[in-house]
Amino acid sequence: MADTVAVAADHGGYDLKCALLPELRALGFGVLDLGTDSRESVDYPDFAEAVARAMEEGRARWGLLACGTGIGMSMAANRHRGLRAALVHDGLTARLARQHNDANVLVLGGRILGPELAKECIKVFFSTPFEGGRHARRVAKFSPVKANV
Amino acid sequence: MADTVAVAADHGGYDLKCALLPELRALGFGVLDLGTDSRESVDYPDFAEAVARAMEEGRARWGLLACGTGIGMSMAANRHRGLRAALVHDGLTARLARQHNDANVLVLGGRILGPELAKECIKVFFSTPFEGGRHARRVAKFSPVKANV
Repeated sequence: MADTVAVAADHGGYDLKCALLPELRALGFGVLDLGTDSRESVDYPDFAEAVARAMEEGRARWGLLACGTGIGMSMAANRHRGLRAALVHDGLTARLARQHNDANVLVLGGRILGPELAKECIKVFFSTPFEGGRHARRVAKFSPVKANV
Repeated sequence: MADTVAVAADHGGYDLKCALLPELRALGFGVLDLGTDSRESVDYPDFAEAVARAMEEGRARWGLLACGTGIGMSMAANRHRGLRAALVHDGLTARLARQHNDANVLVLGGRILGPELAKECIKVFFSTPFEGGRHARRVAKFSPVKANV
C-alpha cells in the first residue's frame, strides 16, 4: 500500500494515463488502475471518487488523476479532506506541490501536457519529500488532524 | 453581489493581487479585498476561508485567489462544496474552467504567472459562460444540488 498509486482518468486523460502507467511501474510503484479504459466519454467525478475511495480505504497511498485540463479532477478530488490534489504543469510546480503542500494526489491535464513533460512531473513529484515546518501548520488548517491518507 | 469578486492572496500572491485589482474594477466588477495587505508571511488557508465565507454568505458571486503556485489555495478552496476553484495558467485553461467546470473561483500562481498573462486569464475567465449540457451533469456530481454560490 505504501508504494501503491491509484490511477484514474476520464476520456480526456486516457491517453496520458496509458503513457504514464509503465513509467510509474518503472519507478517501483504498485499501480491500481481504476480506469477509464477507452476514449469513450465518461464523467470525471466518478473517477476522482474511485481514487479517493481507494486512498481512504488504505488500498493506495498516492493518487494520480488526469482529465482534459486537470481542473475538474482537482475540484472533485479536493472535496475529500484526506486528499490534497495538486494540478501540476512542470517540474517546478510538481516539486513545490510536495515540498509546500504535501500533495498526495498528482493531477495532470491530458490535453495540456505532452507525455514527456508529464513523465518529468511524475519523477519529480514522487521523489520530493514534504518540507514540514510552517508548511505543516498550513496544511493542517484544511486537512484532517490525523491524516490517514 | 452578482458582480462582486471576493479577492484574497497570501504573501506569494500579494503582488499579483495588487496588479489585478484595478483590472477587475476596469472590467466593471465590485471588489471585496480580503487581504493579505503586505508581503509578510501568512497562512494561505486563512485567505481561502475568507473568500469561501464571503461567497457562502452571499457577499460575493465570484472568488479570486492567489498564492505562490496557486496549488495550496485550490486545495483549500475546493474543500467547500459550493466553490469550484480552478487553477488556471493561460487563456485556454481560463476558458475551459468556465465552459466545462463552471468554475466560480479563479486561482492563480503569483510566482508562476506574470501580471500580463494573469490579466488575460481574468478577462477570459469572467467573460466566458458555462456550456451546461453534459458538463452540468458532471459538475452536479461534486457540487450542492442547489448551488447557492
